[in-house]
Parts: sequence; structure tokens; C-alpha cells
Amino acid sequence: MQKPSKDTGSGDRTVASLGEFGTIDAVTSGRSQPDSTVVGPGDDAAVVTAPDGRVVATTDVLVQGVHFRLDWSQPEHVGRKSVAVNLADVVAMGARPSSVLVGLACPGTTDISTVTELADGMWAEAARAGIGLAGGDTVSADQVVISVTALGDLQGRAPVLRSGARAGDVLAMCGRLGWAAGGLAVLGRGFRSPVGVVNAHRYPEPPYTEGPAAAEAGATSMIDVSDGLLADVQHLATSSGVGFDIATQNLRVDDRLAEVASALGADPLHWVLTGGEDHALVATFPGEGSVPQGWTRIGTVVPAGSGPAPVTVDGGPYTGGDGGWQHWR
Amino acid sequence: MQKPSKDTGSGDRTVASLGEFGTIDAVTSGRSQPDSTVVGPGDDAAVVTAPDGRVVATTDVLVQGVHFRLDWSQPEHVGRKSVAVNLADVVAMGARPSSVLVGLACPGTTDISTVTELADGMWAEAARAGIGLAGGDTVSADQVVISVTALGDLQGRAPVLRSGARAGDVLAMCGRLGWAAGGLAVLGRGFRSPVGVVNAHRYPEPPYTEGPAAAEAGATSMIDVSDGLLADVQHLATSSGVGFDIATQNLRVDDRLAEVASALGADPLHWVLTGGEDHALVATFPGEGSVPQGWTRIGTVVPAGSGPAPVTVDGGPYTGGDGGWQHWR
Repeated sequence: MQKPSKDTGSGDRTVASLGEFGTIDAVTSGRSQPDSTVVGPGDDAAVVTAPDGRVVATTDVLVQGVHFRLDWSQPEHVGRKSVAVNLADVVAMGARPSSVLVGLACPGTTDISTVTELADGMWAEAARAGIGLAGGDTVSADQVVISVTALGDLQGRAPVLRSGARAGDVLAMCGRLGWAAGGLAVLGRGFRSPVGVVNAHRYPEPPYTEGPAAAEAGATSMIDVSDGLLADVQHLATSSGVGFDIATQNLRVDDRLAEVASALGADPLHWVLTGGEDHALVATFPGEGSVPQGWTRIGTVVPAGSGPAPVTVDGGPYTGGDGGWQHWR
Repeated sequence: MQKPSKDTGSGDRTVASLGEFGTIDAVTSGRSQPDSTVVGPGDDAAVVTAPDGRVVATTDVLVQGVHFRLDWSQPEHVGRKSVAVNLADVVAMGARPSSVLVGLACPGTTDISTVTELADGMWAEAARAGIGLAGGDTVSADQVVISVTALGDLQGRAPVLRSGARAGDVLAMCGRLGWAAGGLAVLGRGFRSPVGVVNAHRYPEPPYTEGPAAAEAGATSMIDVSDGLLADVQHLATSSGVGFDIATQNLRVDDRLAEVASALGADPLHWVLTGGEDHALVATFPGEGSVPQGWTRIGTVVPAGSGPAPVTVDGGPYTGGDGGWQHWR
């Protein structure tokens, strides 16, 4: 019923002054599309290649004040994050990312530089996965809400579901764990450094090529760690009808993360086990020999009901930190 | 950083009390998926068939207070509309819809019945196009924001772009025009009937099968009418580098619409020419003989610069109503 009005010619650089078409132009013009984009922005819809004959598709919505704070993250970080969390879902199916579409709702008073910086971050993250933004929509709203849809190609393989883990399989992970939680703890105390840890909260760096690599290696189940290692392995346990035991001796705690935890009086292993938003990949493989290079074995799939909890840590229920585990029971 | 908490067991039926997973379950459980959904809700991403080897994809975002009012429309209407506007974009490329994904942001205080009714409308509209909801995301926000991504299959045909109209082509339309504008005018005066016209504002009824039919018949360009006939034909004119002349004698004004206009002292032809949100399809064809059954010829493609405006009405610039035309110049 209401749309941003057209450019008033006054030099005003808000989204409302540029209008819908001006805003879309600011976000899309001068960007180069990959070969997978058959028809890009500017028509009724995009057309993207789907050589496999099936397309992997996922949507995640990020809301200002809920999923990001513009006083803690720059718009470029938020743009990167919004694309990354979706691409992580695509690769967790074992698919190669092929495209993203973006829906952006924001107040008409938003400076156009905020929108172009968001777009810069989205394009940068898409480029990290070898793809581009094929389309989108910009609308007016009271709060910044970013919805991203990511598409992917299975390259002829079966999708790797959450439900395929079998007792005796090996649990392995690839990527970072606990870093985003560490970064959030730093920001929550009012600090802005170390920047490597803080940036891990601002945007994840999922290992995009490792999802298809795990599928190629025969992964029986896979998930990206958005809620926390224990919570997401619990999802694998529920979907597959199995249990898991995680061996903490194999969970690497980086020195930088340990230093930050020490300074804040926190347990870095708790961040690693329960911290979300790093979007590492966790997968099961039919044996030690099938775990791809670059992945670390962190546990074992056990029969359902064989342990004191669906997911145990070093053989027992996890009770560390501020009660982390029961959040997800 | 914050998520709806889990069910408190208090009988509270808000989104916050059910939590993210309970809400997703309320929206997805007990729905039947079409064959095109290979993997539905519940994993990291959906998998949808794309037999053509290319996938058509589009995203539209609808915001409470901007695109809909929950005091004027029931949640089911809003659900229908959110899916319909996206499917209209898919069929305007000449593609057959294959799936939709939904991102829903709403306050935690939202009653779960509002969410299930929204979902009912989405599923009903998807069913009208022979498809289902393959996935989505629900998050917390201050305002209801619905993002829908629709996917479609080109069935081996070239996409019908906005840029293919050529001088000498015939302009034709299929669907309703002016009804949503009439319904909005009724609601704006505080009335709630006639319900047929009012409902046209609440949700459009795009002619889904006619997009692929037009493509099959050789349509040279196509668009769905979201901004208004003149505005959207202007988009065809700009993209194709041509002009258009619309013949009002061929624009049908339904008796019910004429009666409403008469009662409100409005010009129904103005609604037909400038009213948006009906999502009729407008396409160009290489000759009268190629216009499919069910479509109405409403004008002619002329060389760019041959008329007094890029889009003329009965040979002249349109100056009717409350200055409609200059909104979109």
C-alpha cells in the first residue's frame, strides 16, 4: 500500500529518497554474475542453472536486534553473515552453492550506504562460495529484516540428510567451534578485541567446499552447527535414531580462544560444546578411513539408549558451564 | 542472540511459548507434499526437482502495515497473498511453479492460531498451483514480515523476459485488472462489501496455468501486473525498447466493479489502467493468431518514439483519474 517515493533530487541519500528501483540498482549494478546465473536481477524472476535436475533450497531470516546489532557489527558483516548462514545449510546437504536471492526490509530513513555495505558483504560472501546474488526484493519496514534464500546443486549425489547416521559410524567436524560464543562474550563485556574472536561473532566462515567433499567421501549424515555442537548433534541423534559420544580430547581449543576465555573467566570448552553460530560442519562417516582430510574425528555413533543421554561427552551427560545442556533437552 | 523459549506447559498458545521448533511443526505437520518435493521441511535445506536443468527463483517480502493490514485481511488471506504474488512472478517467466519456501518473522506474543492460519492460506494457494511449502524459517521480530521464495520449472522452454517485445507484436492480458484497487477503495471508505471486490484486495488470483500457456504459444515478452497495467507495460516498453498503445475498448470492466465505482464516485477504467496488486498477466505475441484462448488483445506494440509517450492509451497520453500516470513516469 505504501512504497518508498522516487528520488526527490535533493541529494537525500535515504532508501526512501532513492525509491525501490534506485535501491535495487544500488545493490545490483556493476556486480558480475557467475555462469550459473542465466537471468539475473531486473526481470520478474531469476533463472539459475540446476544441472543435477534437483535444486537444494533454504531460507533463513535475520532480524536486527535479534540476530545482529548494528552497533556491534558493521553492515558489511551483517551482509556476510546473512549469506553465510544460508550457504552453510546448502553445503550441509552435500550440495555446491549455486545462487542466493535476498529480501531486504528496512526503514525508509535507512541511509543508502547502509544498504550498499550490506550488499557488499553479501556479494563478498557469495564470491567466497563462487556464486552471486541472482535476485531479490527491497521493501519498507520498521526494523531491518534480511531474508536470504540459497540454492545449491547436488552434482549427481544423494543429499546428505540428518537421518543417515548408524551405530558404529565415526563423528567428525570441520570448521570452527566456540569462536562466535567467545566473540559474543567479549562484546557483551564491552570490549572490541581481539578482533579475530570478535569477528567470529559478527560473521561465520563456514567451510563451503567441505560439505560436497564430505558427501563425496560417503558421509552418512551431516548438519551445520548453528545452535551449538551438542544441540546440533542431538538433532542428528533424533533424526537418525542413534546416540553419540563426543570425545573432548579431540576438540581443539585454539590458543587465542583459550586466552580470551581465561581473561573473561570462562571455560573455552563450554563455548566449543554449546556455542552456536560458527556454522562448522559435523558429519558421520562409515569408518575412520572415510573421514576426509581436513576433518577431525570428535566422537562415535552409538546405539540409541546405550548411554545415559542421547548425546554424551566423554561417556557421561554434559553438565558443564551454566547448565548449557538442559537448554536443548 | 535471542530465540523464542520452549513450551512452558502453561497452555499459553503464543509463538514464544511453542518455540521455534513447535511453531515450525504447527506450520508443516500433517501437510502433504507434492512429488516435486524430494526433501521437505526438517533438514538443513529442502530438495526440489528441477527437471529442466534450470530453476526459476524469485523472492518477495510482505510487511504488516505496508503490504497488508490484519484488521482488513484475515491471516489466511495474507498467507494466500504472500504465496500468490511470488507464484505470479514465476509464471510470468513462462515457468510452471514447483515449490515455495517461507520465512516468517513475527512478535513472540503472536497467537499460534495466527501463524497456523497464515500457513493454511499459504498451503491453500500453493495447492491452487499444484505445489507445496518445501521449507522455511520462523524468527522473532517486532512486526510481522513474511518473505516467500518461489521456484519454478521452465519445462524446456526459454524464459519469457520483459525485453522481447517487438514493434508489430500484439499486447494481450489474462486475469483481473482493477479489482484490488476497487477493493482497497471500498475498505478505505470503511465498508466490507461487496465481498468479491474486497477479497480481490485481500489476495490476488493470478492465472497460474496461463504463464506457461503463453510461453508455449510463443509469447515474446511477459510481466505480471503488480504496480498497475500502465506501470507494468511501461516496464515492458523500457526493457524491450518499444512503445505501446492500449485500446480501452478491449479492457473489460466487470459489472460488479462498475457498480462499486459508481457507488464510490470513482472511474472504474482508472482502476483497470492504474490499479496494482491483481497480478494479471500481460504478454506480447508475434501476431493475433498466436494469442492463446482465454487471453484478450488489449493493444499493440509500436516503435519507440512513435507516440507522444512510451505507453499511450487510445493513441494519447493517459491523463485520467487523480493523475495516475505521473506516478510512474
